[in-house]
Amino acid sequence: MLIETLSVFPGVFGSYLGASIMGRAQDKGILEFRAHDLRDWTHDRHRTVDDAPFGGGQGMLMKPAPIFEAMADIKASDSRPAWVIFFTPVGTPFTQDVAERLSHEERLVFVCGRYEGMDERVYELADESLSLGDYVLTGGELPAMVVTDAVVRLLPGALGDEMSSVDESFSSGLLEYAQYTRPADYEGRTVPEVLLSGDHAKVDAWRRRNAIERTARLRPDLLDAAELTVDERAYARELLDGSVS
Amino acid sequence: MLIETLSVFPGVFGSYLGASIMGRAQDKGILEFRAHDLRDWTHDRHRTVDDAPFGGGQGMLMKPAPIFEAMADIKASDSRPAWVIFFTPVGTPFTQDVAERLSHEERLVFVCGRYEGMDERVYELADESLSLGDYVLTGGELPAMVVTDAVVRLLPGALGDEMSSVDESFSSGLLEYAQYTRPADYEGRTVPEVLLSGDHAKVDAWRRRNAIERTARLRPDLLDAAELTVDERAYARELLDGSVS
Repeated sequence: MLIETLSVFPGVFGSYLGASIMGRAQDKGILEFRAHDLRDWTHDRHRTVDDAPFGGGQGMLMKPAPIFEAMADIKASDSRPAWVIFFTPVGTPFTQDVAERLSHEERLVFVCGRYEGMDERVYELADESLSLGDYVLTGGELPAMVVTDAVVRLLPGALGDEMSSVDESFSSGLLEYAQYTRPADYEGRTVPEVLLSGDHAKVDAWRRRNAIERTARLRPDLLDAAELTVDERAYARELLDGSVS
Repeated sequence: MLIETLSVFPGVFGSYLGASIMGRAQDKGILEFRAHDLRDWTHDRHRTVDDAPFGGGQGMLMKPAPIFEAMADIKASDSRPAWVIFFTPVGTPFTQDVAERLSHEERLVFVCGRYEGMDERVYELADESLSLGDYVLTGGELPAMVVTDAVVRLLPGALGDEMSSVDESFSSGLLEYAQYTRPADYEGRTVPEVLLSGDHAKVDAWRRRNAIERTARLRPDLLDAAELTVDERAYARELLDGSVS
């Protein structure tokens, strides 16, 4: 997959995307990453990318011209069709379903805003606008890294033996069950007995029940859409009603 | 503010946190950042931080001992009280309200997981567990950067003249209104007339209305909690009912 960013800070991606799983994905040829500098598409001595908002207000907006010109050149620079994503608080919330959909694209281009935001007209260039969550960041660079990470780890071969992309939180719509590793007793803190039993059916039942309980306690909003059996749904409802503690 | 991370990849933060607003906040002494290497608290030749899960399953978990030992040392290394945050899909969703609350802390320590997750016992070290959103990442390093960015930009003096931390999306519970900068006509794409009028009352009214309309169209889930006048709430309800297009 080819992933490109358009940003006024093309240098901020290197130490994250060059290391660990993202770095290895590049070494393996699974990910090709290109960071474009928006200022390369300015025509004044100061390489200006921002201007004051019409109608007044604090802060500066990103001008339309450099972004339109950059996107025309970037799109034409590779024969693969580009799926263009803007980050804005107005965007669709990014979720695991979106990550899975994007993992089937050949080429993603992330346009990363800075300053107070972008001139509204540039959004006609977007195939999709995303928001990471209901919080404000200084720019779109971190969201671009987050989406890159979530998408690339789903690509075949990206995760090594020490990780897997299945059995994760959200894949069945539930939070993940609690997990434990050695020692069985760490300074008096012990592991649930059933996990040491070697009885796989009991372990599986404990884990499923634990996942439902954690979801009911911590993220009850997820339960409606979770894949549950009739019995599990009845149990979840009891938990939510407080009839099981 | 002192922000510390505990991670097996302490090198991934540099190019983001060293640049732009985060780098400037460090230059100004607003932010002090320390990245700790979890492997410094291992005692075997391979510096092992992970082990297989009890009860079976794919992948590896982070062992409890290095994390307990590291946190004891890190907490003792500075006299300021540490507020310790773990990142897990099970955590409380991170929002702007959380960022504002955290911006009043003197010292934040982020514990960044890798592999399939962490031994459940380590979560007793957490003052708070956060989740960035309903998606799966390869580790907690990007969430630590996201929370750092969202929090530090709220600190007095962190944002320069080109940005402001007010008038943002979510601060009144609404998405931000559309904004425009020069030129007023970019290749046939024009700016709404009212923004060129110089009539501040009309501009303010247009912006408020635009923010309500965008929120109703794109994020109707936000409207209930938004700060609206009685008239604005009636208008929002009309929009949601489809009686205004």
